[in-house]
Amino acid sequence: MSDKAKPIVKARAISGFPEYTPEIRRAELRWIDTIRTVFERHGYVNIETPSVEEVETLAAKGGDVDKEIYGLQRLNAEGEDKGARLALHFDLTVPTARYVAQHFNELTFPFKRYQIQRVWRGERPQEGRFREFLQCDVDVIDQDGISHDFDAEIALIAMQALNAIGAGPIRFMLNNRKILIGFYEGLGIGNAADVIRVVDKIDKLPVTEIERILVEENGLSADTAKACLALAQIRSTDNSFAAEARKLGVENALFEEGLAELETVMDRLNAANKGECVVEANLAIARGLDYYTGVVYEARLIDYPEYSTICAGGRYANLVGAYIKRDLPGVGISIGLTRLFAKLVKEGVITGERASPTDVLIARFPENDVLELDALANQLRDRGVNVEVYHEAAKLKNQFRYAERKDIPYLWFAGDPHEVKDLGAGEQAHADPASWLPDRLKD
Amino acid sequence: MSDKAKPIVKARAISGFPEYTPEIRRAELRWIDTIRTVFERHGYVNIETPSVEEVETLAAKGGDVDKEIYGLQRLNAEGEDKGARLALHFDLTVPTARYVAQHFNELTFPFKRYQIQRVWRGERPQEGRFREFLQCDVDVIDQDGISHDFDAEIALIAMQALNAIGAGPIRFMLNNRKILIGFYEGLGIGNAADVIRVVDKIDKLPVTEIERILVEENGLSADTAKACLALAQIRSTDNSFAAEARKLGVENALFEEGLAELETVMDRLNAANKGECVVEANLAIARGLDYYTGVVYEARLIDYPEYSTICAGGRYANLVGAYIKRDLPGVGISIGLTRLFAKLVKEGVITGERASPTDVLIARFPENDVLELDALANQLRDRGVNVEVYHEAAKLKNQFRYAERKDIPYLWFAGDPHEVKDLGAGEQAHADPASWLPDRLKD
Repeated sequence: MSDKAKPIVKARAISGFPEYTPEIRRAELRWIDTIRTVFERHGYVNIETPSVEEVETLAAKGGDVDKEIYGLQRLNAEGEDKGARLALHFDLTVPTARYVAQHFNELTFPFKRYQIQRVWRGERPQEGRFREFLQCDVDVIDQDGISHDFDAEIALIAMQALNAIGAGPIRFMLNNRKILIGFYEGLGIGNAADVIRVVDKIDKLPVTEIERILVEENGLSADTAKACLALAQIRSTDNSFAAEARKLGVENALFEEGLAELETVMDRLNAANKGECVVEANLAIARGLDYYTGVVYEARLIDYPEYSTICAGGRYANLVGAYIKRDLPGVGISIGLTRLFAKLVKEGVITGERASPTDVLIARFPENDVLELDALANQLRDRGVNVEVYHEAAKLKNQFRYAERKDIPYLWFAGDPHEVKDLGAGEQAHADPASWLPDRLKD
Repeated sequence: MSDKAKPIVKARAISGFPEYTPEIRRAELRWIDTIRTVFERHGYVNIETPSVEEVETLAAKGGDVDKEIYGLQRLNAEGEDKGARLALHFDLTVPTARYVAQHFNELTFPFKRYQIQRVWRGERPQEGRFREFLQCDVDVIDQDGISHDFDAEIALIAMQALNAIGAGPIRFMLNNRKILIGFYEGLGIGNAADVIRVVDKIDKLPVTEIERILVEENGLSADTAKACLALAQIRSTDNSFAAEARKLGVENALFEEGLAELETVMDRLNAANKGECVVEANLAIARGLDYYTGVVYEARLIDYPEYSTICAGGRYANLVGAYIKRDLPGVGISIGLTRLFAKLVKEGVITGERASPTDVLIARFPENDVLELDALANQLRDRGVNVEVYHEAAKLKNQFRYAERKDIPYLWFAGDPHEVKDLGAGEQAHADPASWLPDRLKD
């Protein structure tokens, strides 16, 4: 039965497809559990969609993404595959849109869902870009109209999730597209979208260069260009952004509406913030111009300011490619879990957890009855303790070494009385199988 | 921003790719959590591997599966993709083999891992066969040799997981390949593998027909054929199988070794069984002939005896296509979660849970301060309560209806004092935000 005669295929990592040791995976799993818990604390329900959609469905989003899509083709397919062409989804928004349309009559609106799934993009891998990665999306979708209350709710959920995973200081930035559009309208700028695209480079190009482009290429007057740049440079962790923006002297109803909406969101975030997130109104943030219509969110790691966005979202007037003859507006946000997690692993911030979930190893010697050890183990397991029974009667030394290598905190000696050794503290004491708990499970 | 002008793409299910409403998905998620918890209770650690492997890696398993493999091809790839050809994994065994080889020096042996992931097969969908499905694998892998203790441990874990999810009565069947091989050796049968393949049809063909094939096509004597069939018809939920098998008069050391191994496993399973699983020694069970070398497991739904195997595994001498110049023996089992779950959904056994995880809806009226409602909600959330704050100040009637449609059990009225209405019981009472808990969270 040995495979030694077989040619050896080299086992190696595939670029862009992250994989971790058990220690690191346990840390990732804890993050996923934490995020999921926060989403459920706010009453959002989990859905999952298949990993694939029909190519036609994915293409309904628009043309510029299709080069990144992985299509599926059966190896050794005889002739053409019949039926729909399938491809791996490249985000969770398109599958959700298809899901909502398909299950429309089975859902209650406003439909609050979260989705934690892998997505795939056939891009060239580079720092922060993966070919397979985990996204954590939380969205609320309603019919025809949707309460502005959700502008704050979605931001609150994301902020609490980011705080709860303990990824370190994160700048959680907010803006409102109405502020930008209204301000530009008030300045008499016709091609607002073009101007926003230029101003959006404010973190990448010098201000003078952006000003030059606005004047020379977008045809703005010098004063107008200066006003646009002044707005884009406003940042505040409280509501002073609004007064600063108003000082620029533009009068426009949409602009005022946007400021008021953002003030409410900032108030609610700041009141609830208990963690390392820095909440910042940032009037440069634009996000997807054709999609978002109100509040927009964008979060970055403060310690790695050059690193790409790790969380983004906003309010949209209609779920992308909605497949249904009515508007489905919503507010949503996506945490790029792989992007965030992989960076902190790479930087050595996340070093992993114990290599095993085991709380206690039950030692095994020739005199032990395995049925009794099983019963003991199951008695402990019923109270939530993770237990291994050593897999053979062996020398104490070997069992110690096994516990040590797997970082198992306790070693149990069955007997009358039972004894448990705390391997960290080095102390051994009597233990009652009916009540003993490891530190992890004590209140 | 409306997409109404866009062509409507029909939202529809893709055959072989299961997708559920939130109610059903919540039930599935509970199963996954339960299985994962049982695996961890036994000290097994989670790993995840990418969804893809290099085609070369998958092909190392052997030739007969490659037609079922989905290869990946970037849509609109310009010319040939450079680099390795990638394909979706079709099971979790091959990825685990590659993982163990790749991370060999980072793992502690015996390496106890579980893996709960989707796998893909480009087969024609039919009842019990999906193109994308979730497998829950638990394996222990060691170097060079592996303790027989794990024959029972892996069976125990699977049995406890199947009992814990509450899938109803399941027949958990066990055999040992040594019993078969030794028995056939003892009868002087040279082509044991061929004979086993024929006898394996005992549940599909009449016994007389199998006997005819054994005599006419496999060249056994009538007595030998009868002995093989007699062995294959032995079933017992206790250890009486061994005496019955010995009565057939075959003397062989391997046969006795197999009987003794299976007796130990049966003892441990029966001692620990607390649930609806029926543990059965079944001397017809053969499983993968080229792979398993000792104990083999196979489980089926008792209420749907025609339905395919929902869980299977056994002991192997070397992890398939091990990619490394030493033997990696192991014992493992795989629960076909999608196959099992989808069947019970289809049969109406699983009808789903509440459409939302929300325990309590905080009502909202014009006089409420949203910051105070947020603080109240977060105070409850900190104790594990799932809370929604209604998304606008609205008529009580509308808020009631929302809670009713989402099956939310409690409605909270903020005030001094606070009051909570139990919507099921219809009772309303004072509630303290510092201590109130829904029934779900009470001990």
